[in-house]
Amino acid sequence: MIKLYDLAAAEDDRRFSPYCWRTKMALRHKGLEFETVPWRFTDKDMIAFSGQGLVPVIVDGKTVVHDSWRIALYLDEAYPQRPALFEGSQSRALSDFVGQWAFRVLHPAVFRVVMLDLFSRIHEKDKPYFRESREKRFGMTLEEFASDPKKRVGDLRGTLEPLRPVLVQNKFVSGPGPGYADYILFGAFQWARVMSPIRLLEPDDPVFAWRERMLDLWGSYAREAKGFPVWA
Amino acid sequence: MIKLYDLAAAEDDRRFSPYCWRTKMALRHKGLEFETVPWRFTDKDMIAFSGQGLVPVIVDGKTVVHDSWRIALYLDEAYPQRPALFEGSQSRALSDFVGQWAFRVLHPAVFRVVMLDLFSRIHEKDKPYFRESREKRFGMTLEEFASDPKKRVGDLRGTLEPLRPVLVQNKFVSGPGPGYADYILFGAFQWARVMSPIRLLEPDDPVFAWRERMLDLWGSYAREAKGFPVWA
Repeated sequence: MIKLYDLAAAEDDRRFSPYCWRTKMALRHKGLEFETVPWRFTDKDMIAFSGQGLVPVIVDGKTVVHDSWRIALYLDEAYPQRPALFEGSQSRALSDFVGQWAFRVLHPAVFRVVMLDLFSRIHEKDKPYFRESREKRFGMTLEEFASDPKKRVGDLRGTLEPLRPVLVQNKFVSGPGPGYADYILFGAFQWARVMSPIRLLEPDDPVFAWRERMLDLWGSYAREAKGFPVWA
Repeated sequence: MIKLYDLAAAEDDRRFSPYCWRTKMALRHKGLEFETVPWRFTDKDMIAFSGQGLVPVIVDGKTVVHDSWRIALYLDEAYPQRPALFEGSQSRALSDFVGQWAFRVLHPAVFRVVMLDLFSRIHEKDKPYFRESREKRFGMTLEEFASDPKKRVGDLRGTLEPLRPVLVQNKFVSGPGPGYADYILFGAFQWARVMSPIRLLEPDDPVFAWRERMLDLWGSYAREAKGFPVWA
């Protein structure tokens, strides 16, 4: 069975990494069985065998793969007979664009809303590492980064504008069925949902309806994860 | 032969619509012969047969199609034996996301840089229509919208961030070969190039190298269009 090192908060079963969520959804999409191992930011030794210090890391027999994007490519290559994450080379490149947009636009917008809730729920042993690394990245304190959360919710909803017409036309960002681009984007929302009670979306938002469809996949797999129930 | 109504500036052969460029590149991609008819914003009567007042409009035998996105879908459906613009339903939905991002993020960023050059080169008869419709859309005068062009060039380069890693990994946004998402994005750059001498990109930018590849396609089809040579 595939083993996945999965970022956990203070509680073992609160799993919040948006990148690990991409991988968990991808594994479910492919119908592959897997077990997860709770991991914290400071458990660098535990995944030293992967040659680096971040999750997700999967161990599939003798194969070790790290980085959610590389894992997605690996899964389609190693299991071509199972449902594809990518339709082909064109959708792979376009999904990469979605991932770059998520990294540079969507994630920062979500992070500014949920940061303080998130910080309060990570493991105590991770807090100094988290504060230092994030304050260095943002060039400001966590509290400055997360100030004025009401304005930040509005900013986040603004950044979602390009998604809405696509989700009015299609059930998923990848068309009639979910694909890896959906898991990329869903990871950001699940990251928030697991760690914060703040309401990101209004029920009349096409992105809200899409998130519901994502939460429903595979017997409500993501919905049943420890987190905060979303309005509705 | 397919007939395309194509937005022209003061000069008949200066063709600047980003949406018409999407269609011209798509027609070349499919290897379809076409002739263009110069059209101005105020020539509403000329395309009244299409049931609306904007270009691109194509006439293919007895079929009339307007709207660049609908034309792209039509071309793949009507000419399935020719090179596909879309790999399948997944890349179609993802290309739609690229188009929504172009409309809401990329186009406004380019427009703020080239607006005054563009306005100076459109047909005199179009100027009152253009000023009135755009000032209404932006909620400010054209001159306010286009103020501080140096800052605007920096803003534009910032909005391109999600594209760069994709274009380092792939020759085109659609992967190893160009697809409709490339024509969507290229339209914005060609719109600028046809109407303004302002340099949008630095030669060391992966987006610059991609634009060169786009300008080279089909015997330099877009490069030979009337416009301003781009640095290099």
